[in-house]
Amino acid sequence: MKKYYLMAPGPTPIPPEVLQAIAQPIIHHRTPEYEALFGEVRAGLKALFQTKEEIIPFAASGSGAMEAAVVNTLSPGDKAIVIQAGKFGERWGGICKAYGIQQVVLEAPYGQTVPAERIEEALKKDPSIKAVFATHSETSTGVLHDIESYAKVTRNSQAILVVDAVSSLGVADLPMDAWGVDVVVAGSQKGLMLPPGLGLVAFNQRAWERSKSATLPKFYFNMATELKCVVKNQVNFTPAVSIVLGLKVALDIILKREGLQAVFKRHDRLARATRAGVEALGLTLFARARPSPAITAVEAPKGIDGEQVLRTFGKSHNITIAGGQGEMQGKVFRLGHMGYVGDFDVIVALSALELVLAELGVPADLGAGVRAAEKILAEVR
Amino acid sequence: MKKYYLMAPGPTPIPPEVLQAIAQPIIHHRTPEYEALFGEVRAGLKALFQTKEEIIPFAASGSGAMEAAVVNTLSPGDKAIVIQAGKFGERWGGICKAYGIQQVVLEAPYGQTVPAERIEEALKKDPSIKAVFATHSETSTGVLHDIESYAKVTRNSQAILVVDAVSSLGVADLPMDAWGVDVVVAGSQKGLMLPPGLGLVAFNQRAWERSKSATLPKFYFNMATELKCVVKNQVNFTPAVSIVLGLKVALDIILKREGLQAVFKRHDRLARATRAGVEALGLTLFARARPSPAITAVEAPKGIDGEQVLRTFGKSHNITIAGGQGEMQGKVFRLGHMGYVGDFDVIVALSALELVLAELGVPADLGAGVRAAEKILAEVR
Repeated sequence: MKKYYLMAPGPTPIPPEVLQAIAQPIIHHRTPEYEALFGEVRAGLKALFQTKEEIIPFAASGSGAMEAAVVNTLSPGDKAIVIQAGKFGERWGGICKAYGIQQVVLEAPYGQTVPAERIEEALKKDPSIKAVFATHSETSTGVLHDIESYAKVTRNSQAILVVDAVSSLGVADLPMDAWGVDVVVAGSQKGLMLPPGLGLVAFNQRAWERSKSATLPKFYFNMATELKCVVKNQVNFTPAVSIVLGLKVALDIILKREGLQAVFKRHDRLARATRAGVEALGLTLFARARPSPAITAVEAPKGIDGEQVLRTFGKSHNITIAGGQGEMQGKVFRLGHMGYVGDFDVIVALSALELVLAELGVPADLGAGVRAAEKILAEVR
Repeated sequence: MKKYYLMAPGPTPIPPEVLQAIAQPIIHHRTPEYEALFGEVRAGLKALFQTKEEIIPFAASGSGAMEAAVVNTLSPGDKAIVIQAGKFGERWGGICKAYGIQQVVLEAPYGQTVPAERIEEALKKDPSIKAVFATHSETSTGVLHDIESYAKVTRNSQAILVVDAVSSLGVADLPMDAWGVDVVVAGSQKGLMLPPGLGLVAFNQRAWERSKSATLPKFYFNMATELKCVVKNQVNFTPAVSIVLGLKVALDIILKREGLQAVFKRHDRLARATRAGVEALGLTLFARARPSPAITAVEAPKGIDGEQVLRTFGKSHNITIAGGQGEMQGKVFRLGHMGYVGDFDVIVALSALELVLAELGVPADLGAGVRAAEKILAEVR
């Protein structure tokens, strides 16, 4: 018997009380009961997104919600800046390509970030740019992009700022209204501690205004149609009812039981402990700047394939972590620590890492990673 | 204490063992465990769709899957026949409109069906027609369209036949390969006895061939990209893992425990009992032809608003049924009997209907509907 641990960057572990809510007998969505439930969820989502705007839910993964952000704000041939420093930045590029958007790609090497100055410069150079697509926590590299600075250079420009917050919502602070972010996109299976299948999109008034003239074709992901329903506590198409049942409980845990700021602090503390542990084992963090509190990407030890690390976590310890995506495959492995995660999840991850390194013949002091992490956990309360 | 009964045409009740499967701790989708699970689900779906082709799952509702069928088979400006005899036929029209498809609308009044001859004639008249969009069980009117005949007139034509089987898959027989249906679209929350949030699309080789030249824009709903993943027991984007966990159990119930043909017979028998009961109460079926085994639509009693029937089911008996959609609102009410439904669900529905009619002052013999239904249940084994 080997207990199973899910330590990948999404889907993330689900609290037992959320699982129980999801396993309730299904309710019908065109009923007063569902409308009352959804009314509470609506209010909770606004608090979570830190906005006064409505959040539109789609029965879809985060990538579907990203598509909604594109097709509701742009028209064929429009020009947009796409910030690319990882696989999820490249996903914005893929969606823009599919819909015939002209792209101004601002790249940084994997593990690094794009400074706001480059966006400012590009926007000044080309006043026809309509949108800037960015990623808050880039899950593929473990880097947190500086959305606050991005918003400073976009909010007085002609372009709206569209942020993929799929793996940062409820993990890292992203005050949508206070920073002036125009569009925030999220998903259910990361910080929200739910199964995948619910995508969330928030537009501010500037984005809603833009949506009126956006002519890219859309049907399932039509934000304006959904908004008309949401304000009546409804949705246009059959919603992911079971996930919405779980969402009510997850929002209560985040907002009422722990508190949003405490949730951010917990993630920051656990991420710092993880990084300290990894470095104490002589390994190198893949993030060169601004490591994300959602995930720690680690360079594979010299002479070892990162996929071998991943497989050994699975085979020897029944722990799911993540490998590298695309060109990063084999070069990195990734430890997720978002959502329903506490001190001893970090300890288990580092202990397992020590045992994995030993099994693979990588020199590392057993216990050194755990000790370094405990130091952070003891210091930061 | 009033026990709750869900008797609407989707979402439908979920078997307890499926709910339990859904409430399992989540597993990660990039693991051998998920791939093994999905491998079994893939095989089960082929049996359910009665096809040798792959079934592509999307984290989306049935409407999202319908959109996938459109954007992967057509190009801007293409012409298509849209069969419209209810709200779901009109949904095909809505999707075609959003994507700039020229529509040849073949209509029938609500409650009726469009004969195959009209399709044949339209196809002969205009050889540029690329597709025929039809609805198997039209949930808004309770009519089952004759897809077998539609396939006879399309399979040797230039047009592919695309069928919305959202509320008929696992309810009414639809042998995709045997009939020569090119595209079948379904959802999780009807005959499959699952929560909403999983859309399913099957293409035959003719549809896959067509998809190669279809230039409508798509990203999330790209069938070709998904196919490459599905054959490796994977998906492109994060799947609705919890529903897939439930799907494995639901497929076992349908295919192994009961058997697909027995499932069809059960639905037919329950639908016949329901219709007999409704008519014995002096009410009129809304379906003028080919009533669906998934749902029974009933005309509101004279002088009574159908919405009042719906509300009385809810308020007095804690039973959710459905009202009329669009122009049918107030004129019909609808009793669902698909999925996890047995003899005594029909009896409860009819008993409640008798009590509701009594409460609303509609003359009807108490017990007459139940008696008529029992007669069918006793005769048809």
